[in-house]
Amino acid sequence: MNNYIEKNKQRFLDELIEFLKIPSVSADPKFDGDMQKAAEWISQKLTDAGLDKAEICETAGHPVVYAEKIVDESLPTILIYGHYDVQPADPYELWNSPPFEPVIKKTKIHPDGAIFARGACDDKGQIYMHVKAIEMMMAEGGLPCNVKVMFEGEEEVGSENLETFIKENKERLAADIILISDTSIIANDIPSVETGLRGLSYMEVEVVGPNRDLHSGVYGGAVANPANVLAKMIASLHDENGKVTVEGFYDKVIELSAEERDALEAAPFDEEEYKNDLDVNAVTGETGYTTRERAAIRPTLDVNGIWSGYVGEGSKTVLPSKANAKISMRLVPDQDWKEISELFEKHFKAIAPDTVKVKVSRHHGGQPYVTPTDSIGYMAAFKAMEEAFGKTPVPTRGGGSIPIVALFEEVLGLKSILFGFGLDSDALHSPNEHYGLFNFYKGIEAIPLFFKNFAELSK
Amino acid sequence: MNNYIEKNKQRFLDELIEFLKIPSVSADPKFDGDMQKAAEWISQKLTDAGLDKAEICETAGHPVVYAEKIVDESLPTILIYGHYDVQPADPYELWNSPPFEPVIKKTKIHPDGAIFARGACDDKGQIYMHVKAIEMMMAEGGLPCNVKVMFEGEEEVGSENLETFIKENKERLAADIILISDTSIIANDIPSVETGLRGLSYMEVEVVGPNRDLHSGVYGGAVANPANVLAKMIASLHDENGKVTVEGFYDKVIELSAEERDALEAAPFDEEEYKNDLDVNAVTGETGYTTRERAAIRPTLDVNGIWSGYVGEGSKTVLPSKANAKISMRLVPDQDWKEISELFEKHFKAIAPDTVKVKVSRHHGGQPYVTPTDSIGYMAAFKAMEEAFGKTPVPTRGGGSIPIVALFEEVLGLKSILFGFGLDSDALHSPNEHYGLFNFYKGIEAIPLFFKNFAELSK
Repeated sequence: MNNYIEKNKQRFLDELIEFLKIPSVSADPKFDGDMQKAAEWISQKLTDAGLDKAEICETAGHPVVYAEKIVDESLPTILIYGHYDVQPADPYELWNSPPFEPVIKKTKIHPDGAIFARGACDDKGQIYMHVKAIEMMMAEGGLPCNVKVMFEGEEEVGSENLETFIKENKERLAADIILISDTSIIANDIPSVETGLRGLSYMEVEVVGPNRDLHSGVYGGAVANPANVLAKMIASLHDENGKVTVEGFYDKVIELSAEERDALEAAPFDEEEYKNDLDVNAVTGETGYTTRERAAIRPTLDVNGIWSGYVGEGSKTVLPSKANAKISMRLVPDQDWKEISELFEKHFKAIAPDTVKVKVSRHHGGQPYVTPTDSIGYMAAFKAMEEAFGKTPVPTRGGGSIPIVALFEEVLGLKSILFGFGLDSDALHSPNEHYGLFNFYKGIEAIPLFFKNFAELSK
Repeated sequence: MNNYIEKNKQRFLDELIEFLKIPSVSADPKFDGDMQKAAEWISQKLTDAGLDKAEICETAGHPVVYAEKIVDESLPTILIYGHYDVQPADPYELWNSPPFEPVIKKTKIHPDGAIFARGACDDKGQIYMHVKAIEMMMAEGGLPCNVKVMFEGEEEVGSENLETFIKENKERLAADIILISDTSIIANDIPSVETGLRGLSYMEVEVVGPNRDLHSGVYGGAVANPANVLAKMIASLHDENGKVTVEGFYDKVIELSAEERDALEAAPFDEEEYKNDLDVNAVTGETGYTTRERAAIRPTLDVNGIWSGYVGEGSKTVLPSKANAKISMRLVPDQDWKEISELFEKHFKAIAPDTVKVKVSRHHGGQPYVTPTDSIGYMAAFKAMEEAFGKTPVPTRGGGSIPIVALFEEVLGLKSILFGFGLDSDALHSPNEHYGLFNFYKGIEAIPLFFKNFAELSK
């Protein structure tokens, strides 16, 4: 660890803890005030780090925080993107410590300690690495590239208003590359750089049967039960080979070459450890693909939530009037999320029996994305990782989605570099989310190396 | 309507309203105080009606209210059974008026008005008919039979502690027949007497996958999703003919003869009206049976509740750690609810894939029941209905369950007469439950006629 980080590590951590205490949950309106508070807090820190023109830009939803430092028009410009909003913390009862009261605990994977809190890794901890890396570069000889920072507050709800924002701010956002730390590395001793992300289509369905909840004794057996019908419809969305049955779902999927697949398999992976970590006896998925392929280069369909009827204490002999589910699909190149959303809606309505009425609505989505490994940006990231970890990193494909990335390319004509430092085991989106202190400080160390390499390779 | 009822109709109604205002929900511990209150209230009314030895008998659960009047050892004794507990009222938002603030409203089916409140028909309104009928008989020349009254507080949660109570009180409960008003007639102009009831087995299942909620992007496609797995398991519980697939489920089902089926079909029924009332385009169920048969003489399996993952506002890209469901089965002679519960548990565990762990637990259950139509009790009820309505009643089979009825026969050696006055459209167990004033007063008029007929036929 370099001297500057060493000298300031406790302050960096204290500041992050302060940031994590703000429950900036974008999905739930009751946290709107905290969203504003988080935006103001991070905006102030960008100014403190030495950036100019820090601004809280209002949108139709939660604000975008922007700041920049143009040191020399002739230097390349790096646009840093990240998000200050977090996933809902529930189920709260499964957290070992309150999600918005950060605590430091050692774990087997994080012997130096990890900070436990919602957003610790996704993405507050990772965007704060950039703020501190900028502070460090400014304090030690200045920035080797111009920098622009854009932190949004709606990533966890589909970045609904960011599209308008970037379209209206093309000039201001002009840059050479976008740098994003919102992904993970394979392990703390196996650095990696992601070469792509999956897209997303998030839907909600409602199956309506009788116009009221019914007595299951008086009507049971004679009237379609929406909960049973929804279960049957969901079951039919996968075939016996684990393939999604939505008509046309795979039409645009690009199959990877044997070489590409081998390259991805080359990265270390222990399936037994994977199963032990999740406490499952067996893994499953699409026939003909490995666990890592299923979670990265193949499209999927998952129920994210389902509810119907009586779910309280004890029993209620009711035949529910309706049943609902949240269903999302992860997409790969060249699936188009809008097209898939339409195909899903069409298919789901088509398989509904005439005993029920079906409603299908969209939450949000995003396109899949691939980073060219021969680009200056990718090479700069690769080298920075190598220097920071003292090890050659492994190229990987991420299974998650950052919907906005594909849009950046479309609107701003810019490629994004996925420069993340989390671990898949950090419980993102789960109770007890955490982020290793090692990863936090390593990121602060690696970011300036990316700036240096990108400046040099751009010459 | 006879003079006594005419003179006292407003008071009878006011008293019932007072009774319905007590939220005696047995399933939810937070209403325990109200359960006690309801028991004390109805006990006082039994004393006011002229019965002796009114007592609130404590059990391991909610108390049993008992009272009796032995007018002459040589006369036959009628044991009246009913329950003062009600189903949970949620979903509250679907009630047009608060469930525990009774209001009188006219409806198409109830032009004289109906009282809207949880428990109005099931079963507070119907047990109160007995209390007022007894008051009337006592006021007008006395009881033609001895009477014993037993109102329990756990019918809606499976009468768990009533079995112990009746076993410990065989002497006290000695009688010639049991009279129960907790069922329905076909229509206000089509009186009917039920000849049987379905049994019940109420189960709860839990499907556990990964040990924590997971990020659906990082793990989706590679790990079994408990919500998808549960949907698939539930879907498999019915075959393409609507038959329940639980191994051995139909082994003990007694098929009715063509004659018996014809007799049941003889009762008036309008399927279009039935569909319109429920606002469904089509009915469905077991192939080879009519709507009424599916809801009465055939066993069924229904999901009463299902929940998993994120069910809040907006979206959460989570792969849930577990999924739960409440599943109940209606049974017909000679299915045994304990055996069926075991078969279900065995079957459900057998169909679980090795990617998940499954837990199965029982809520409660009860045996199916049939009343012999040639018994004195049934004939007395048939005649009483005929005299009260001025029309020959129709024999029917009820689809609901009163688990305790089979137990009465087993423990006390007594047959039960299902002497109910509700309508299936009264929204039992649903929001906006109601009970027609016509039905309420007609019941008070018919009960003394049963007493008279039973005394005469017993000579």
